[in-house]
Amino acid sequence: MNELTMNLKTRSKIPLYEQIYSYIKADIQCGRIGYREKLPSTRALSKHLEVSRSTVELAYEQLLSEGYIEAEPYRGFFVAQTEELYHLKKERVQAFAPKQEKKYRYDFSPNGVDLRSFPYNAWRKLSKDILMDDRTELFRSGDSKGEYGFRNAISSYLHQARGVNCSPEQIIVGAGSDYILMLLSMILGREHRIAFENPAYKQAYHMANALSYETVPVPLDKNGMVVSALEASGADIAYVTPSHQYPTGIVMPINRRMELLRWAAKRDGRYIVEDDYDSEYRYKGKPIPALQGYDAHEKVIYLGTFSRSVAPAIRLSYMVLPQTLMEAYERKNGFVHSTVSKVDQLIMQRFLEEGYYERHLNKTRALYKGRHDVLLEGLKPMWDILTVSGEHAGVHLLLTFQNGLTETELIQRAAKEDVRVYGLSDYWIGETKEEKPTILLGYANLTEGQIEEAVEILERCFRR
Amino acid sequence: MNELTMNLKTRSKIPLYEQIYSYIKADIQCGRIGYREKLPSTRALSKHLEVSRSTVELAYEQLLSEGYIEAEPYRGFFVAQTEELYHLKKERVQAFAPKQEKKYRYDFSPNGVDLRSFPYNAWRKLSKDILMDDRTELFRSGDSKGEYGFRNAISSYLHQARGVNCSPEQIIVGAGSDYILMLLSMILGREHRIAFENPAYKQAYHMANALSYETVPVPLDKNGMVVSALEASGADIAYVTPSHQYPTGIVMPINRRMELLRWAAKRDGRYIVEDDYDSEYRYKGKPIPALQGYDAHEKVIYLGTFSRSVAPAIRLSYMVLPQTLMEAYERKNGFVHSTVSKVDQLIMQRFLEEGYYERHLNKTRALYKGRHDVLLEGLKPMWDILTVSGEHAGVHLLLTFQNGLTETELIQRAAKEDVRVYGLSDYWIGETKEEKPTILLGYANLTEGQIEEAVEILERCFRR
Repeated sequence: MNELTMNLKTRSKIPLYEQIYSYIKADIQCGRIGYREKLPSTRALSKHLEVSRSTVELAYEQLLSEGYIEAEPYRGFFVAQTEELYHLKKERVQAFAPKQEKKYRYDFSPNGVDLRSFPYNAWRKLSKDILMDDRTELFRSGDSKGEYGFRNAISSYLHQARGVNCSPEQIIVGAGSDYILMLLSMILGREHRIAFENPAYKQAYHMANALSYETVPVPLDKNGMVVSALEASGADIAYVTPSHQYPTGIVMPINRRMELLRWAAKRDGRYIVEDDYDSEYRYKGKPIPALQGYDAHEKVIYLGTFSRSVAPAIRLSYMVLPQTLMEAYERKNGFVHSTVSKVDQLIMQRFLEEGYYERHLNKTRALYKGRHDVLLEGLKPMWDILTVSGEHAGVHLLLTFQNGLTETELIQRAAKEDVRVYGLSDYWIGETKEEKPTILLGYANLTEGQIEEAVEILERCFRR
Repeated sequence: MNELTMNLKTRSKIPLYEQIYSYIKADIQCGRIGYREKLPSTRALSKHLEVSRSTVELAYEQLLSEGYIEAEPYRGFFVAQTEELYHLKKERVQAFAPKQEKKYRYDFSPNGVDLRSFPYNAWRKLSKDILMDDRTELFRSGDSKGEYGFRNAISSYLHQARGVNCSPEQIIVGAGSDYILMLLSMILGREHRIAFENPAYKQAYHMANALSYETVPVPLDKNGMVVSALEASGADIAYVTPSHQYPTGIVMPINRRMELLRWAAKRDGRYIVEDDYDSEYRYKGKPIPALQGYDAHEKVIYLGTFSRSVAPAIRLSYMVLPQTLMEAYERKNGFVHSTVSKVDQLIMQRFLEEGYYERHLNKTRALYKGRHDVLLEGLKPMWDILTVSGEHAGVHLLLTFQNGLTETELIQRAAKEDVRVYGLSDYWIGETKEEKPTILLGYANLTEGQIEEAVEILERCFRR
């Protein structure tokens, strides 16, 4: 072959061997050096290029390992058959403007998470440590329920923080709550009527409908889902948010919880799905243990997630199955691969075990409590026209108005002043049954200063 | 309050402020310092402990941010109401021995992936860069189809490497192929009869059954699924692996592909699911473009995955929907959150864009080709008792025996010598139709030396 001439950049950040490798590879790919052509010996090329012989050897090894050249004992290196090799051109990524929703100056979204308080440094450190440590085990196919150590850490957390009684064997980890519901539907089968609280957590309600379940709304009183109405609905599964009803913020008292458990115990095949989506945040009194902790008849399917308390883009949710459903899971779904990468599971496991999660929860809790308090304080001057409810927990509260404005008018007046508030009617299943106009204010994504400013604006535009 | 006495370790790796923080936190948690008790001023404590004042200030700030103490202007720091705070004890992880399958000295698993060739350094580097770069955007809730940039990189890869015609809008990313099938079933609805190749890729077949579909096996001839039998089966969806039929290794020729496409075009609502699970590995001739590339009637749903070509624990699969199904997806499933974390999507995106994937594919291809060649060579002395098929692609091949031994006998004889081989009958739906005993040998997880050794053992035990 002709001599290989290449313009090596000794001061480049790209190592010399890599530059040589790239030159030769490009020459092979475009056919400048043909099939079966012999490459110069490593000694000759190193002399020609004035680099060390080991540099050329490294470049040849790389070409060899990727199939561009072949080594023949005592004869040297030859260009291989490269037709079958991958040669992917780098295409420029098209510019793309995602559809943007109108941005408001103040957005009281009830689904906010303060991402500025995300523990970047801890997360990065754990991620680095784990990628350093584990090597091959980390990338081998994992346990379909989720890694045992991670499930063990979850079970310990749930026991301490939520009073949930379970062994790691009952926990199944999945990539987000939507996925967990898909998996659960495969375990339970289709033949069920599911009762939802009304107003409801719509994401779960939509999911149940998309999974072709028959769904039925059940009204709430001040203690949560009305059990006599549940009984009358003919449903055999009740989907509830007892720790903090979404969206009304009702905390289900112990009597109602017991009543609900008795409803489930009355018939075989009845279940309660307890969605404990944001129990982490309470600002007054002790947290109330999960319904699951009182369940003596293996009737509660407990759902939890780290996507809300850590970050939405971290797809880590889980369910705790009652013993009675474990057999069905193993039989019907045991073969389904886990949807969460091992790396993420291990990061979250250490995040729990090494105390980072406890600190993160206390920190965000203090942050949200501050915002909650400022919001409550700011609303005081409006007590003549509204009633506050659902406060002291979660990351939003509700305002019910008695000043003659409709919900739509309230939202539109606020929108005109660049403040976004959310109407309760969006959460109703079927026709809105609420007569009193009510809006939701979420405060997780606004600073205390922003809340003060926004509440002043709201007062101005809600007074007629 | 009493003076805070603590035994600070100046030479510890734990910073002093963190030690002070931990001491006070522990005292508050166990009640040694009670609610409303005043903490010493930062000046007094720094003097007492002989540390700088800023060290104490840092410790107090930490306690403040986690809600253990409260600051009162002009008065100092007081212990807060801490009942609601999280206090998670570190429980020891129980020792746990996962169920272990018998380990064989030589395991010819057809589902192997060589994890020693996993590009740890590149993966770690990209992971680090991404966690450095993006900050909050990285943890915000993402696009439900998957990040646009990632889908763009996939579409460019598919176009170049597989001849797939699609825009990024048609691609939906999900955490593994099982999940993709769940999502697809929600788009298509339940009312379908799905035809599977027989013998079949059982994971997808089990999934279809678990999703309550009616399934029907369709026989193969030497060109793949027999289209007249498919027509007779009454199925409206055909699940096929045309690039490399699993498990027989048949590569569907262009005529059969066209025949299959004509079958689909004949009726509204008919679809072909093309599972292109391991098209990356071919050792002879150019790769055959995907069936999707020939589809003029929007009938092919293309499935792909990075879990096989990169690592099983990386949960990254995707489907390409025909335009005709996009509307149904948006309407029925647009609201379902993505199951893949943004970090993983961005790592894989850069892995594709920066040429790492191309290099990885060529490297593993060369590696597997080496093993494939050694295995073929080693089998030559047995040509009188067996026929090889399904070679030149994928990571396994098939041996059909004519020496009078049954499949079970072949497997048992090998097992006795600590070699694991796999029977074709496991892949049959319904009763085994294969009369000739056939075993599968996967070579992705064995070195060339191990393959040579194992094949010698096999010859010894297969000769009667």
